[in-house]
Amino acid sequence: LKPIEWRGDSLLLLDQSQLPFQKTWIELRDPEGVSSAIRNMQVRGAPAIGISASYGMVLSVNGSSLNEALDSMKRAKIVLDSARPTAVNLSWATSRMLNLANNAVEQGDVKNVKELRDLMEEEANQVFQEEYEAELKMGLYGLEKLNSGDAVLTQCNAGGLATGTGLGTALAPMKLAHALGMDISVFAPETRPWLQGSRLTVYELMEDGIKTTLITDTAVGLVMYKGMIQSVMVGADRILRDGHVYNKIGTFKEAVIAHEMGIPFYALAPTSTFDLKSEEKDVKIEERDPNEVRFLRGVPIAPAEVQVYNPVFDVTPPKYVTGIITENGIIYPPFEKNVRKIVQR
Amino acid sequence: LKPIEWRGDSLLLLDQSQLPFQKTWIELRDPEGVSSAIRNMQVRGAPAIGISASYGMVLSVNGSSLNEALDSMKRAKIVLDSARPTAVNLSWATSRMLNLANNAVEQGDVKNVKELRDLMEEEANQVFQEEYEAELKMGLYGLEKLNSGDAVLTQCNAGGLATGTGLGTALAPMKLAHALGMDISVFAPETRPWLQGSRLTVYELMEDGIKTTLITDTAVGLVMYKGMIQSVMVGADRILRDGHVYNKIGTFKEAVIAHEMGIPFYALAPTSTFDLKSEEKDVKIEERDPNEVRFLRGVPIAPAEVQVYNPVFDVTPPKYVTGIITENGIIYPPFEKNVRKIVQR
Repeated sequence: LKPIEWRGDSLLLLDQSQLPFQKTWIELRDPEGVSSAIRNMQVRGAPAIGISASYGMVLSVNGSSLNEALDSMKRAKIVLDSARPTAVNLSWATSRMLNLANNAVEQGDVKNVKELRDLMEEEANQVFQEEYEAELKMGLYGLEKLNSGDAVLTQCNAGGLATGTGLGTALAPMKLAHALGMDISVFAPETRPWLQGSRLTVYELMEDGIKTTLITDTAVGLVMYKGMIQSVMVGADRILRDGHVYNKIGTFKEAVIAHEMGIPFYALAPTSTFDLKSEEKDVKIEERDPNEVRFLRGVPIAPAEVQVYNPVFDVTPPKYVTGIITENGIIYPPFEKNVRKIVQR
Repeated sequence: LKPIEWRGDSLLLLDQSQLPFQKTWIELRDPEGVSSAIRNMQVRGAPAIGISASYGMVLSVNGSSLNEALDSMKRAKIVLDSARPTAVNLSWATSRMLNLANNAVEQGDVKNVKELRDLMEEEANQVFQEEYEAELKMGLYGLEKLNSGDAVLTQCNAGGLATGTGLGTALAPMKLAHALGMDISVFAPETRPWLQGSRLTVYELMEDGIKTTLITDTAVGLVMYKGMIQSVMVGADRILRDGHVYNKIGTFKEAVIAHEMGIPFYALAPTSTFDLKSEEKDVKIEERDPNEVRFLRGVPIAPAEVQVYNPVFDVTPPKYVTGIITENGIIYPPFEKNVRKIVQR
């Protein structure tokens, strides 16, 4: 399962808005197309968004001069960054690409647009490769927290579909555990409004032969209360230096209940997910179209004119976070002190 | 909005499985039909189930002798009680009807089947009337806990559709507050799998002109975290003498988060909801068809063969319950001591 494929002059994405019912590939040839695919959630998940945005930046390298190409990249960064405001990987990736381009041009490392484009392509491939290696390391650190027989509660899809690599962040430990012959199972809440759990996590884990149970979002409390869950592992879209974890809406409730029931709660994310500058008050929680709640796969499920509040991320305060598992190791509280030891930028 | 209508020789129910998309009435002429309507959730909500079951018992009074009629009622009680195992009002109502019938026959208060049936009809009407009066009182007690400007989070539908009277239990305080000109709004989580929130609560409150916001079940944590909610009010399907509250799946998570955020959590239920005999270990949590999670209004939303755990109630321990609002007053902790003062049976 490899949902992102770079073709040299275009980006192929497995359309996640149609999974698991249809396997449709979309081909994108410019940053506007990539931005639109991110906005429409045809590609989703913080790392996959970062990788796609990197390739979107490659596609923006055009013009008859290096200055024109850099201008085109600056415009592309604005177009791409605006697609999803909460995911920090997006602007992290576009900044990385643009900064490298600026430096290369300034220092005369590239002589023409062709060379700049080659450099950008190499860098985007590097973003992908670093992501995959980071996931392997996160998976191994996470594996230390699992015992054979454990059932793990997750949220949304922080798997190989979300990261573009086929491995994933929060699902990586369970995939490695399964590969090593451990008896591991996963409880996947459906994750309204977009049903990443029932559509993607369940699909991805079943493809890998991992025992998976689908539950409604309303049932996350009961499964923890009944002792059916030994560990909670989720991804993250943004983590602050004090340990506030932004992730898919519904994560916060899992963290609070896990805390109350004495179940460990881990966020798994590459260090690129850390936002060391912002404070909680600075971070905007993305709200999406009310029709995502009023309709489901085109079918009305509520009165058409009802008022809707549709935030798609929430924030989990550090109090409820047992540890943050990164490619550089596991960060434990106090986060204000320990994040900086692991995340150097 | 009056979803239950007794016609003398049949029971008319507004089919809640089709609301708000279709307003279909079903006409039932025997206890098997009533049991099936309860099982298929064409009528749902603990008090409405109790009222419907009472009329189901009236419909069972048949035979050429009083003994035959009593036998028929005994069989009807078994058929009706099996329809939904968690709702205690169901067996409470059928026992009330059968006990009265047994006593009336034993003591010679009724001379023939016709008189027995008249007595049963009167008693079922009485069940309805007592429910309505109880809701008015609960609404007034609940009103004491509301201030103008408050937003109340609920769960499922504990409104007039759930009780059959048009008023409701958990929604009664907000309806009275609105009628008195107070500025009150309600946040309704959609309540998967059956969407009682998006389909019924939102419909019912909008019909009454009360400001209502629909949210996903995943968003209940964030709205409390952000200070958007001043009070949580939910119904109950069964309450134990030590204060354990059984209610629609998802209630527990609201209670835990409210507790953690310092928001009061109230369960509103008539004293008929109390089960003074059972302990937590005795109560079976109803699990329903996995296809309720795999499909939504007939549309597939998950891989067809995925394993599903679909409990439809959960239990909230007394630790998280601020108070239980009944028609006889508000019960505060310690429940083990205070429930008995209010609930005499």
